[in-house]
Parts: sequence; C-alpha cells; structure tokens
Amino acid sequence: MDNELLKKIVTAVKKELTNKPSVEIEASGRHIHLSRQAIDELFGAGYQLTKVKELSQPDQYVCQERLTIVGPKGSLENVVILGPERSESQVEISLTDARLIGVSAPLRESGDISGTPGIILLGNGHVLSLDKGLIIARRHIHMTETDATRWGLMNKEIVQVKVMSERPIVFDDVLVRVSPDYSTFMHIDYDEANACGHFAGLKGIIIKKSDASD
Amino acid sequence: MDNELLKKIVTAVKKELTNKPSVEIEASGRHIHLSRQAIDELFGAGYQLTKVKELSQPDQYVCQERLTIVGPKGSLENVVILGPERSESQVEISLTDARLIGVSAPLRESGDISGTPGIILLGNGHVLSLDKGLIIARRHIHMTETDATRWGLMNKEIVQVKVMSERPIVFDDVLVRVSPDYSTFMHIDYDEANACGHFAGLKGIIIKKSDASD
Repeated sequence: MDNELLKKIVTAVKKELTNKPSVEIEASGRHIHLSRQAIDELFGAGYQLTKVKELSQPDQYVCQERLTIVGPKGSLENVVILGPERSESQVEISLTDARLIGVSAPLRESGDISGTPGIILLGNGHVLSLDKGLIIARRHIHMTETDATRWGLMNKEIVQVKVMSERPIVFDDVLVRVSPDYSTFMHIDYDEANACGHFAGLKGIIIKKSDASD
Repeated sequence: MDNELLKKIVTAVKKELTNKPSVEIEASGRHIHLSRQAIDELFGAGYQLTKVKELSQPDQYVCQERLTIVGPKGSLENVVILGPERSESQVEISLTDARLIGVSAPLRESGDISGTPGIILLGNGHVLSLDKGLIIARRHIHMTETDATRWGLMNKEIVQVKVMSERPIVFDDVLVRVSPDYSTFMHIDYDEANACGHFAGLKGIIIKKSDASD
C-alpha cells in the first residue's frame, strides 16, 4: 500500500473515532439541594451556604455545611449540600442508601419531585422534616447546545451509553438534557458507578436509540 | 386480515419470543465459602455447617452460621456462609462493601483466587486470617448443558445480557459457565442489582457477542 493511501485511511479512521459522541461520566454521591426556606430553618434566616468546591456543571458547587439524613433503620451522616439554593429541597440517595436507612425512594429525574416521599434532615442542631423530595436520580447526560447539535441529539432524547471498563455495561434509558447552562457530563450514582467499574475520567460512547441493535 | 393469517403470525411471533435465550437473574449478597481447614479453625475439628436453605444451584445452600468480615475502616457483620465446604475459602463482597470496610478486592471469576488479597473473619469467638480469597465476583451465568446446546452457547463464552426494567441495562462481559451440576441462572452482585432495578424473578435476554451491534 502506498504511503499516501495509508495516510488517507489513518486520517479517515481518526476522524471517525473523534466524531463518535463520547461523554465523560461522573459518579454522584448522595447529596442534598436546599430551598431558601430549608436553609433558613436549619441555619438561620438569610444564612448563606459556604462554597468550598466548584462542580463540573457551571455555577454548581459543594458547600462546607453537612447534614444527616435520617430513616427508620439508620442514618447517613456528613452528607454534602450542593449549592446554589433551589426552589425546592431535594435529597438524592442511592438504592443502597435507601435500603440501609429503611426508606423507599422512587427513580426520578432531578427536579421532578411531585408525589415523592419526604425525609428527615438533621444539622446545626436542628431537625428539618421535608414532606417530599427524596429520590434516586435517573441516569442522565448534561449537554451543551454545541455538543447536542454536532451529535444530532435533542433535549429529552433517550440514548444508550456504552462503557468500556473492567466491568463493561451499556446503560440504557439515559436521559439527555440540553441547556446553555450545562457542560457535557453524564451523571450516574454510586450503585451504577460500582456496577460499571467507574474511575475518574471514564468516558462512555453515546448510542442513539435508532442506531441500537434492539 | 383473515383469521388464519393472524393465527399464523401470532404463532410465529410467540415461537420467536419463546426461543429467545433468557435467563432469570439472581442478586448475590456478600457471602463466604469456607474450606475444611477454615471450618475446623472457626468452629472446631470436624464441625458440620448447618444447612438452613437450599439455593438455586443444585446442592448449594445457606448455612445458619454467620461471620464478621473485618477491614481497616469497618466490618460487615452477620455475613452468610454458603455450603458445602470448598477446597479453598473465598469471600465475595461488593465494591460498596469494599469501600465501606477499607479494603480493595479484584474482580474475579469465582474460584480464581490466586494472587487475591487476604481478609480477616470473626466468628464463634475465633479470628481467622485468610491469606487470600477476597474477590468481587465477575457477573456470570450458570447454565445447564441442555440450555447451552439449544441456545448454541459454549462454556466460557462471553455474552451480553439485556435487562428490561425501570433502570434498563445491557450487561456486557457476562461469563457463561456450563456444567451438569448447574441450573440456569445469572448471578450479579448488589451493586449491579441496584444499578439495574433488580427485583425477584427479573429475567434478562442473552445476546451472543456475534449478534451484538458493536
């Protein structure tokens, strides 16, 4: 084979591989989003949460303040609060967590908390009883408009994500969420992370459902 | 459409679905297999473990005796022993368990324990320090020879298993183990079970790697 042809093939293959939609996968530990009212009740009127670390999503951050999530069979201590405050409080745990503390939590998209169970939070010497907001987060991809456009994906589209690791998995029913406020990252919880042999920097290949075999 | 044609189509579709290789999936919790020597050391020379419940695999059973698995950061209490005794002791935990007690455990096929870390077991007032045998079990299917033959699968073949649940997943790298001593069941651990929304009786479709899309 002559060198020119070889070069053309290598370039074509590289382009093909580079164009495959791939996404870095982050494992989200259990965490809490608080409303203004919840912050007031736990920490005092007008209290401002203390930012300690930026997250991958723009303007989202880890707070210094920690809370305990209490269930009938046990509690989860030292749970991180993510800022900024939200219109409604939301507590995201894994199924492992739910079993450990003896509660049941539905699989929901973040923000979709109508009809979800309540939960008790402890912190700063106060008890806060939420009447809803306990969920297991549905696996999802935050995506920039640029990435959505170049990969031909739409907001709310359901895709598969193929993970090639020591414990390979294809995640099905992965919700794509497109917003100018996002950067492109997939979020799974720790059960899913453990099941797929997750490590920092792990990437997955996005497969459109129309391209999937079945 | 005439009724005869409809009946033919329904029959054909039913046959197609029925012939699809599917397997019931069982979630294995953390458990311990003990050698004769380990039983002697923990419970006394010649002690016979007490069978309390049959498992899906022929001649395998849950024992009444329980042990504690000890790691540098914590311990797992009341861990079940599975009988009968084996030639070598083996301790199977999940990645969640490993993190909880501060140990690292490799992903291994059951029985393949050369070079694996040791672990400390407590029970019946005794301490047993195993010098190897701590693993995270690689997902696998126990399969009868009959099922392997009708589905065209071989011992040691790697397949995918598609799970249709609230949290659908395709498990990749699933090891098929064929033996006259087995009944056909897939085994995953609790991390994998939680990640795929497992419930009792959940079935998965076996996909040969040659049939997979990529």
